[in-house]
Amino acid sequence: MPKIRLGIVGYGNVGRGVEHAIGQNKDMELVAIFTRRKPGDITPVTAGVKVYNVEDAERHLHAIDVMLLCGGSANDLMVQAPHFAAMFNCVDSFDTHAKIPEYFAMLDESAKKSKKISIISTGWDPGLFSLLRVLGMACIPNGCDYTFWGKGVSQGHSDAIRRINGVKYAVQYTIPMDCALAEVRKGNNPALSTCQKHIRECFVVADPQADLRLIEQTIKAMPHYFCDYETIVHFISEKEFEDEHTNMPHGGFVFRTGTTGKENAHQQRMEFSLQLDSNPEFTAGVMVAYARAAHRLYLKGETGAKTVLDIPLGLLVIESMEELRKVVV
Amino acid sequence: MPKIRLGIVGYGNVGRGVEHAIGQNKDMELVAIFTRRKPGDITPVTAGVKVYNVEDAERHLHAIDVMLLCGGSANDLMVQAPHFAAMFNCVDSFDTHAKIPEYFAMLDESAKKSKKISIISTGWDPGLFSLLRVLGMACIPNGCDYTFWGKGVSQGHSDAIRRINGVKYAVQYTIPMDCALAEVRKGNNPALSTCQKHIRECFVVADPQADLRLIEQTIKAMPHYFCDYETIVHFISEKEFEDEHTNMPHGGFVFRTGTTGKENAHQQRMEFSLQLDSNPEFTAGVMVAYARAAHRLYLKGETGAKTVLDIPLGLLVIESMEELRKVVV
Repeated sequence: MPKIRLGIVGYGNVGRGVEHAIGQNKDMELVAIFTRRKPGDITPVTAGVKVYNVEDAERHLHAIDVMLLCGGSANDLMVQAPHFAAMFNCVDSFDTHAKIPEYFAMLDESAKKSKKISIISTGWDPGLFSLLRVLGMACIPNGCDYTFWGKGVSQGHSDAIRRINGVKYAVQYTIPMDCALAEVRKGNNPALSTCQKHIRECFVVADPQADLRLIEQTIKAMPHYFCDYETIVHFISEKEFEDEHTNMPHGGFVFRTGTTGKENAHQQRMEFSLQLDSNPEFTAGVMVAYARAAHRLYLKGETGAKTVLDIPLGLLVIESMEELRKVVV
Repeated sequence: MPKIRLGIVGYGNVGRGVEHAIGQNKDMELVAIFTRRKPGDITPVTAGVKVYNVEDAERHLHAIDVMLLCGGSANDLMVQAPHFAAMFNCVDSFDTHAKIPEYFAMLDESAKKSKKISIISTGWDPGLFSLLRVLGMACIPNGCDYTFWGKGVSQGHSDAIRRINGVKYAVQYTIPMDCALAEVRKGNNPALSTCQKHIRECFVVADPQADLRLIEQTIKAMPHYFCDYETIVHFISEKEFEDEHTNMPHGGFVFRTGTTGKENAHQQRMEFSLQLDSNPEFTAGVMVAYARAAHRLYLKGETGAKTVLDIPLGLLVIESMEELRKVVV
């Protein structure tokens, strides 16, 4: 059985995660990495992997079964993905929820022309959390769902703090509120806004001369990002920042709670959670599993854009459906 | 849009649950109930629903889009399901894990002949738990999975107690051990047998003259069912039994824990759990969602037996994929 030949576009945190994830799947091999940097500046972990400029990708059309697009949603994928979808089977983790319909339409057009497949917005939210929200709606139609994020680093909020005068380094953790989790678990179906579900905890390294009180006030007053939230600000040393706050943990919860039966007498609850030491590596693992599905669906003749909701879960693993029926079902 | 016309075969706890679940889905209607009892002995909750003898089902071939087979795995489905799969699109919750390959093969043959679809082993284990086990394997290939059942009533174990001399009523709860759950959540990937993961708690109403010590000893010594487990036996009054132990709660957990990245440095954990006041009603809700998928796949021309692993999750809900991309993904 020939291995599935994969390419990586973009060698940041997710790209490196994809490289490690491919190494954990014995039916796959990494063929090449494509970068906008100078190829010589990149040293892949995997022996024998070539690094090329991203402009050279089309010369490798026949060497790569599925391309993993590891760029960011905000700046890279809106432009890059339609271009790649017109040449390769692709998988990405596009995560700007509001733009998914528009992004889907673009990639669907590209991929249908090229007769290839693009699976968009894999990863965990969107991605696994989308799957679980739909599963909850399906099985408990008379109910509510709740998504909580964290405990984990929000890049957007960390960046917002870093833009404040006098801030040298900063990281912001989004933390689900225990009291909100408890209310949901009780089945009370509370109405909860995002800021009633989460605390924002910030760790800041300030410049020596900076006015700490002013920085704290500026953070807490920042519209959209912090002003509606319970926000905690800690000032720490550069050493503590380096030692304790350079990982990228994340996670979260999806709940569905509702009632069934005569007079809705019975409470039913579904709960899904992730606790991730490394957000980009887990995202990478999900992408690689969907690359397997993309390859299989392409071999069956399917084309166009897909989301995780279009893909049977049995296609994600190395085992055949027959093996899965024996062991897993 | 015409409603999906459903039939129920077998009007026990799951069958009644299916009837209530259909009432929660506005794109569906219950057309008829088929029973081995005298049709006159059954009074459906839903107005206008006809009750027929199970032998008369084939006269309703054109009136029913999907038949929900609500019989038990041990005695009903092995015989009944191939017969129905040869006539109707079917959904069942066949749950004898070891016999799934054999059962699948039988139904696949029947359903391919009739050019219909049978989705087997929906419900929650097998069913949702199978989905989550596969999702875990896919996203964290270097890891272990764990399934815990409970807290909930095990019919098999309750029946085993009831067969003991001097026992009038009995119910057995399977309860996950907190210490085992904690070990798994820590990511230690412990080796745990089923009896190292669960406690068995029994509530027994004994005959007035019965030797309680003997009953307790008999339970605790019962091979396979109890002797390897931490087993707790309570003797209670008939009133307490009626008041506290006639519901059918259940639930459980599926975990996947493992590592990713360079030198497997990062722990990743996925956890799914169900807490159900009514096991049969939740099972029924899952079956009804898969009936929607069966109908949609049939309209697309698919045939044969399927498991939950073959079905895209987006097909389970009333919303179209386009609506889901806007709202859920």
